[in-house]
Amino acid sequence: MNRDQLLNELSAFLRIPSVSTLPAHNQDCRAAAEWVAQELRRLGCHDVQFLGSETHPVVWGAGPEIAGAPTLLIYGHYDVQPPDPLAEWTTPPFEPSVRDGRLYARGAADDKGQVFCLLKAIAASPRPPVNFRFLIEGEEEYGSKVLFDLVEREPQRVHADAILVADMSYVAPGWPAVYTTLRGLAYAEITVRTSKTDLHSGEYGGAAPNAHEELARLLTRIKGEDGKINIPGFYGPVQRPSKTELAAWKKLPFKEKDFLNKRVQGKGLVGLRKYSVLERLWALPTFEIHGVLGGFTGEGAKTVIPAEATAKVSMRLVPNQKLKTVERQLEAAVKRFAPKYVTASVRFLHGADPAQIKLNDPSFKLLDQAFKQVLGRGTVPARAGGSIPVVPALASGGAPVILTGIGLPDDRLHAPNEKLELKQLWDGIEVFRTFYELLGESGRG
Amino acid sequence: MNRDQLLNELSAFLRIPSVSTLPAHNQDCRAAAEWVAQELRRLGCHDVQFLGSETHPVVWGAGPEIAGAPTLLIYGHYDVQPPDPLAEWTTPPFEPSVRDGRLYARGAADDKGQVFCLLKAIAASPRPPVNFRFLIEGEEEYGSKVLFDLVEREPQRVHADAILVADMSYVAPGWPAVYTTLRGLAYAEITVRTSKTDLHSGEYGGAAPNAHEELARLLTRIKGEDGKINIPGFYGPVQRPSKTELAAWKKLPFKEKDFLNKRVQGKGLVGLRKYSVLERLWALPTFEIHGVLGGFTGEGAKTVIPAEATAKVSMRLVPNQKLKTVERQLEAAVKRFAPKYVTASVRFLHGADPAQIKLNDPSFKLLDQAFKQVLGRGTVPARAGGSIPVVPALASGGAPVILTGIGLPDDRLHAPNEKLELKQLWDGIEVFRTFYELLGESGRG
Repeated sequence: MNRDQLLNELSAFLRIPSVSTLPAHNQDCRAAAEWVAQELRRLGCHDVQFLGSETHPVVWGAGPEIAGAPTLLIYGHYDVQPPDPLAEWTTPPFEPSVRDGRLYARGAADDKGQVFCLLKAIAASPRPPVNFRFLIEGEEEYGSKVLFDLVEREPQRVHADAILVADMSYVAPGWPAVYTTLRGLAYAEITVRTSKTDLHSGEYGGAAPNAHEELARLLTRIKGEDGKINIPGFYGPVQRPSKTELAAWKKLPFKEKDFLNKRVQGKGLVGLRKYSVLERLWALPTFEIHGVLGGFTGEGAKTVIPAEATAKVSMRLVPNQKLKTVERQLEAAVKRFAPKYVTASVRFLHGADPAQIKLNDPSFKLLDQAFKQVLGRGTVPARAGGSIPVVPALASGGAPVILTGIGLPDDRLHAPNEKLELKQLWDGIEVFRTFYELLGESGRG
Repeated sequence: MNRDQLLNELSAFLRIPSVSTLPAHNQDCRAAAEWVAQELRRLGCHDVQFLGSETHPVVWGAGPEIAGAPTLLIYGHYDVQPPDPLAEWTTPPFEPSVRDGRLYARGAADDKGQVFCLLKAIAASPRPPVNFRFLIEGEEEYGSKVLFDLVEREPQRVHADAILVADMSYVAPGWPAVYTTLRGLAYAEITVRTSKTDLHSGEYGGAAPNAHEELARLLTRIKGEDGKINIPGFYGPVQRPSKTELAAWKKLPFKEKDFLNKRVQGKGLVGLRKYSVLERLWALPTFEIHGVLGGFTGEGAKTVIPAEATAKVSMRLVPNQKLKTVERQLEAAVKRFAPKYVTASVRFLHGADPAQIKLNDPSFKLLDQAFKQVLGRGTVPARAGGSIPVVPALASGGAPVILTGIGLPDDRLHAPNEKLELKQLWDGIEVFRTFYELLGESGRG
């Protein structure tokens, strides 16, 4: 298939605004699932099903049966993050646009472009080299509940010789990676209430508590200026990476200065300064504020003392931290840090335990070999700062989970102007085609 | 005129959503101005004009000329505060509703109901006892720029023997007041920026700065937990009330416990605890956060590190503080308190100097007498926590500004379920009719 046609097909997929966290996009999520199902049918899948949800189904498929060949389960997701702030996109998020060899669209890298790459690598094989299974879900950006429930109900869905997850990136251009940990996630809303209704700041200002002020103070108590998260017990189970691992990270083509200037594009980095930036990103937990609601945020001026304010926050968790424990710790910290005259509460929206993966299955060597053949450099072991909530569930059947991907670190996932470099896509199709064939040969050996 | 008919007329005025801070309501503001103009014509004004703005004009009027009688300038405003949060209104803000002798609507007390009261008190006189002038503006809730410009351009508009401003409340039911100070106001937006675009909290969390976190920390530096505002120089010119004044306040029917339980309806008060609540409300400046923008505030979850966050804030100012000085002080404090890796800026939306009024004109005694005749109790001198930006400009021609009103302290100005008690309205019409006649008689004496 020629590249123009491939680009047209991928663009059609990217045009569907399948934002899973916004109910207004339920039908778009369904449409993206239909798109995936159609592709699986074109690959010869005999058993394409929508499982677990009408609006955000897991798309299941099983390819043609190849006697004696290993079984490879391919995981990916067709849902995307919300595109706001819209004004910061150079071209609209759901109108894919190619500029300078880069394809710009929400989902270009996370994860539609990568799902597309995995599927087209199968189509590029003269004949299917392995037994393919597919679990392409529609709630990765919203906690993967449908897929969690499915795997609990039907654990055989994750039975395979290996599971391939391409939702990640190279550690640098030319440096493909395989990941050994994923951070977990606990997403919550912290709400403080200080009075029954909003109050006039002239009539009450100076004596009535202000919910925004109390929330700001509470948030600064939870996380200090030094970057330390002051939730009691939070760091208890956190372990430092081994000396070998830390030494290996030093050899990666990662420069803190470039990270600041080219990726953050800010004036300085923050966090626990006694650890390297890579350690902060890959091996330490976080507490981030995503947005703050309450009071008056319209145009112009309104002099109101807000009665209630809510912060949307999340914590990234590292191996040995447990989601349920961290949720209890945050709740206790909020109660402890809020003054008596404030009613404070926490509501948890979704979350995921962290994941840890050992690279001892032979399939990791085959992926390494495929990258070497195509790019001239194999995979480096790395850790991931992001989360794929369902990875522990995928691993529950005992199959090795191969976490890799064709993105680059500056793809601006979850941010305006998300992109995928076309070179990465074309290389990726060739790499995965090679990997499938190597895996098929290994099964027949 | 019977009370049902008066209520119908007032309701028609209240139904106009004349929110001056929201450009979408420009035509509504104009419609409210037309309503006022029509009323002035019905009172026999021969010279009704719209001055200074097409959408938020000052409505000027001059009543029939009464030879030898004093001139009374009546000030009021037909614009109102935005009604949000809409969900907290029992009945919609622009559908006036009477329950238990109270009229609920945005603007019922601030200030449409009071403007209505002043005008109907004129209509209730058998013949006009004084020379009336009217300046009814449409930008009181947004800085009064149109009226400021008008008074600067045409200072004769505020030439009068007295100026009556009924935009205030009793200090308690049965206790009418006349006010000696108004707090000023400085309304601003504080913005911090930490990166070029929003970033993925998995990819960047732990090392990239978070605009919401930096803003929260900045705000807690500006105002501490003890209620103290830490803007350098801010309290410099603030003077304590005299011992006599403080002693008089102690005799007012004001209980801190009632203020907390019945008006704030919260679990505790805050602020500079070494001063009484009345002193905090009337004689000390404030810093309040009204709303916070930036990042993701939609439904559901989005794991973004915001690049920019903005707080809408305002400060109430007390006599001797100057708006321009305080604006400079806030800007300097923001620069000083923001860390180096943060770009922080301040934008001022509008403001007003504080006002101070001496009660030495004979007209204050006449108002006192009018209240005594109607209610059996005269006016107590009080201070006001709120602001009427234009009062210093009104006073610039040398006329005494009589600050009073028929509201009650629990009218919920600027908040959901704003109300005016009908008894206050009917008493008010009688009080002001009496005042006009006493003033007219004094002129002829």
